[in-house]
Amino acid sequence: MDMNITIEQIAERALRSSRKIAALTAEQRNKLLLDISKSINNDREKIKKANELDIKNAVLKNLSSAMLDRLKIDDLRINSLCEGIEKVVKLDCPTGRILSSIERPNGLIINKVTVPIGVITIIYESRPNVTVDSAVLCLKSGNAVILRGGSESINTNIALSESIENACNVNNISDVVQLIKTTSHEAVSKLLKLNNYIDLVIPRGGESLIRKVTEESTIPVIKHYKGVCSIYVDCETDFELALKIIKNSKCQRPGVCNALENLLINRKIAKEFSMLVDKAIPEVELRGDNEFCRYVGRAEAASEDDWSTEYLELILSVKIVDGVKEAVEFINKYGSRHSDSIITNNKDNADYFMREVDSSTVYHNASTRFTDGFEFGMGAEIGISTDKLHARGPMGLNELTTYKYLVYGTGQIRN
Amino acid sequence: MDMNITIEQIAERALRSSRKIAALTAEQRNKLLLDISKSINNDREKIKKANELDIKNAVLKNLSSAMLDRLKIDDLRINSLCEGIEKVVKLDCPTGRILSSIERPNGLIINKVTVPIGVITIIYESRPNVTVDSAVLCLKSGNAVILRGGSESINTNIALSESIENACNVNNISDVVQLIKTTSHEAVSKLLKLNNYIDLVIPRGGESLIRKVTEESTIPVIKHYKGVCSIYVDCETDFELALKIIKNSKCQRPGVCNALENLLINRKIAKEFSMLVDKAIPEVELRGDNEFCRYVGRAEAASEDDWSTEYLELILSVKIVDGVKEAVEFINKYGSRHSDSIITNNKDNADYFMREVDSSTVYHNASTRFTDGFEFGMGAEIGISTDKLHARGPMGLNELTTYKYLVYGTGQIRN
Repeated sequence: MDMNITIEQIAERALRSSRKIAALTAEQRNKLLLDISKSINNDREKIKKANELDIKNAVLKNLSSAMLDRLKIDDLRINSLCEGIEKVVKLDCPTGRILSSIERPNGLIINKVTVPIGVITIIYESRPNVTVDSAVLCLKSGNAVILRGGSESINTNIALSESIENACNVNNISDVVQLIKTTSHEAVSKLLKLNNYIDLVIPRGGESLIRKVTEESTIPVIKHYKGVCSIYVDCETDFELALKIIKNSKCQRPGVCNALENLLINRKIAKEFSMLVDKAIPEVELRGDNEFCRYVGRAEAASEDDWSTEYLELILSVKIVDGVKEAVEFINKYGSRHSDSIITNNKDNADYFMREVDSSTVYHNASTRFTDGFEFGMGAEIGISTDKLHARGPMGLNELTTYKYLVYGTGQIRN
Repeated sequence: MDMNITIEQIAERALRSSRKIAALTAEQRNKLLLDISKSINNDREKIKKANELDIKNAVLKNLSSAMLDRLKIDDLRINSLCEGIEKVVKLDCPTGRILSSIERPNGLIINKVTVPIGVITIIYESRPNVTVDSAVLCLKSGNAVILRGGSESINTNIALSESIENACNVNNISDVVQLIKTTSHEAVSKLLKLNNYIDLVIPRGGESLIRKVTEESTIPVIKHYKGVCSIYVDCETDFELALKIIKNSKCQRPGVCNALENLLINRKIAKEFSMLVDKAIPEVELRGDNEFCRYVGRAEAASEDDWSTEYLELILSVKIVDGVKEAVEFINKYGSRHSDSIITNNKDNADYFMREVDSSTVYHNASTRFTDGFEFGMGAEIGISTDKLHARGPMGLNELTTYKYLVYGTGQIRN
């Protein structure tokens, strides 16, 4: 079959099914989700077998053990996928909420009501659990979804999506979750032009994937870009508290986007605090500006590139700054608009920092690691947006909805 | 000077100035707006002279009298521009509003607060008043703006933007409003790739302009697309009320995006109601399906293209449908997701229509002409979004803001 027709057909079907899922009640959507959980649970042998094939191919390709671990689906992970679905079922339905309701002088009643976005495409890499998580969150919020996973996990993704599709078919709502089964990039390029059918693209993965999607897409994109997060330690600070937060932000899970990459220290406390940092995180490789390197023997000189690099490992770049103003300028220049924190007892400096730093989440006296849908009480997370439009920061179920205006009249006409 | 550098410099300056305008208080922004109004008022002779040049060129190019009228800036229009600014000054400041505030079990306080978007680019055609209106709304909401107007109004736009810039300079906030003075499309193409500096592009104009911008832009776009609006007249209907609403939606101002283009009539009342439509709007050219044409002698056969055409003049396409279900399917297929209305006394049918029609604004027993920022009580309007993300339907000041999370801790770290 001609590839062009296939991709367009997938998009057409998604649009048609999006009207159906939008019209389902919250109870009907929850029943669908529970059926998906059962279906995955029943198909676990088939899913593990498919995953073995992906693992075998990955070993042949010499993928790192970290990559292999991310790829792996075993019984424990299948259990946790199913438990995750059951948790989503318990969350409130995000559609049909009245955001505002006004009565105009002419008697028109204007209600602004949340509705599903429509058709969402998720483009992601390696981790096959994203296949299930994304599908479930899109369905809960009444959207149809087109999934495009990484080539390394194609067999696992096919097995998981078949289990999902079977449950959807039983609920008379076919095509509401569709996996693109070809691994060619051409298919993605075609998909990204189908803005008549698809309402939103969410790319989740490396920088080059996201850049490519942004450049090619005529569909709105919400980027889940890198996290170059900074902490600024002000001069009026409880050192112990600051060190605890720095250690947590950098070391508790260094491979994630809300982990710390840049540390900024106020010059007035630079010497003393630099030496404390040195001792507090001996497991972390330190890179620094001239001044920091003078205080900490083991630190190497940071290059210009270091300041905007998302290490995702135990490396930290450190810079000495004059004060909160320079810290803010640095973050707005080198950061990725993700998560940044100020550690200070000075309220004015904290207020200035929080107002002026142009990032999705700005902290005062807390770890950057809290930027997360669950930690924000959303009960779910489809990702963390580094964009400013529609959704910024952690995206939960509410961020997978849009709104429309329902206007009730009694024959009003415009003068 | 190399064009590439110039456009990038404009964007860089806009980003820098966006931090400054964001930090101004509501009072400071209002003072700036009042100074802009004074500046335009003082410069009126210069502005009118520049406009005369544009009008002269337009006459040489044989532009229609409607186009000439849209282009024209006279004393009355300058007065109304200045009055418009004073009205915007009186509106509430849209930034700094707390959208939600929660305390987490670990004691973190998470506030979701509205902030300016940053740098907004508006690309528009002919009407020079858009230069002032857009600048004023962007500044009120704390954004920097890059304006790119149509070539026909370039001299007027330059004069207006100079008056605006002078007022900004007096307030020590230069580069916050910048007009692209070259009329080459190349400049726009370059601008649309500068997603490191610019946060949002709003194209306002014809279909081809909007399509071009959407295809070229790596910056998020909110489209202000055409309005193919429909009214469905159900069988249980007050005919008089229905005719009044149809006449208003079609005839009160046919050249705008919320005017009526398609009329759908329930088959049970088709004969009687079609003849009433014929009589009620004699000034409107009627096109119809076979059945409507049988009832109304003067109607011509509608082509497939007619159903998705935004006429913007006194033409109406009419189709007879089986009921609300077919009406919804028709609208979701041929409409432009703008504004649609059902006229009925049947509550179930009204509910079905309002839930299922996938448009920004859906009406029950009211004219489609109310889709408008002022009619919705927003006090201002930058346009009407036909997109689903970030802003849908009328866009006022709130829609020119985004949010960020301010998280207040006392040393919290993640487990």
